[in-house]
Amino acid sequence: MAQVQQIEIRTSKREEMIDITSLVRGAIKKTGVSAGVAYVYVPHTTAAVTLQENTDPTVKTDLLGLLARLIPKDGGFEHAEGNADAHIKSSAVGASQTIPVEGGRLLLGTWQAIWFCEFDGPRSRRVLVKVLDG
Amino acid sequence: MAQVQQIEIRTSKREEMIDITSLVRGAIKKTGVSAGVAYVYVPHTTAAVTLQENTDPTVKTDLLGLLARLIPKDGGFEHAEGNADAHIKSSAVGASQTIPVEGGRLLLGTWQAIWFCEFDGPRSRRVLVKVLDG
Amino acid sequence: MAQVQQIEIRTSKREEMIDITSLVRGAIKKTGVSAGVAYVYVPHTTAAVTLQENTDPTVKTDLLGLLARLIPKDGGFEHAEGNADAHIKSSAVGASQTIPVEGGRLLLGTWQAIWFCEFDGPRSRRVLVKVLDG
Repeated sequence: MAQVQQIEIRTSKREEMIDITSLVRGAIKKTGVSAGVAYVYVPHTTAAVTLQENTDPTVKTDLLGLLARLIPKDGGFEHAEGNADAHIKSSAVGASQTIPVEGGRLLLGTWQAIWFCEFDGPRSRRVLVKVLDG
Repeated sequence: MAQVQQIEIRTSKREEMIDITSLVRGAIKKTGVSAGVAYVYVPHTTAAVTLQENTDPTVKTDLLGLLARLIPKDGGFEHAEGNADAHIKSSAVGASQTIPVEGGRLLLGTWQAIWFCEFDGPRSRRVLVKVLDG
Repeated sequence: MAQVQQIEIRTSKREEMIDITSLVRGAIKKTGVSAGVAYVYVPHTTAAVTLQENTDPTVKTDLLGLLARLIPKDGGFEHAEGNADAHIKSSAVGASQTIPVEGGRLLLGTWQAIWFCEFDGPRSRRVLVKVLDG
């Protein structure tokens, strides 16, 4: 049984995408599991995790920009804390990613990286990494 | 091996979010698994499951409202049954959630609850809960 | 331990949904796992996988049409390759689906099929299928 690993990150803007691929790789290494499935889990309701290209930085700018256009901060929402948009983005992008592991390596595609998505920062955030053997 | 557990719910509106966290907790308890990963799975194409805040009820009103604005019921769709919007919302929000389990407890964040999303009710619906040990 | 299975597909349009349910069923059969959880994983950043109805073909037309309306190809994006929309759709729909398995069968609902979503074809694409026993 591989213990749940915890990654701590500090975001610096209200909306931001942070490449956590190497942090997740480090967490998986700690578990010692060489084949199975890895889960990257965000225990927050105004953040998310996605898989996306990490070569061209405009991809994340475009993604955050389009989300802001579709789900505007000032969208006439009822939620009083002023972060209804962040809650909705969190549900739209999703709280977890599931990635197969083989030979001790994440089977990410050539262009895939793991991105933490901050929608209501800056804040201290946690990401849980669990690996099932099999 | 932990058997798949089935939760049955009855929705009462066309669009509705129902907090099923305690039902999922009960299903996990029945499996007797204390550490591993839990999967909450919706076997429907006009419903979904998401993780979201359960403290302020406006968060779900805002989420359903924004989805209805982006994916309007009367959106000029071809699908003849009049529920094309519900199908699209189902794919946008997603059919499953994956949550780590430790010490017999779901590792949900402080503000996270598990929400069944009805997009074409009222109906009888099923939610499957599976837990893998490890 | 069940090896990761690989499905190869060739898409024929820029945007397209292909029903891969029977290919995934074949891959699961090869693993010999009769109970557990199946993961369908897309290692690409301009494609995705979703669960959706396969009876009425207008459902996929409506889904692709609505995505194109919300995330237009010519949406004023910065990414120079002209496929920023495809990247965003990939993150919106998601790179994986998780489905419980029992008695050697995927526990898909009556109307659910597994769809590969191409957002920047035509191309050769891969889908990974992993099954955990338990």
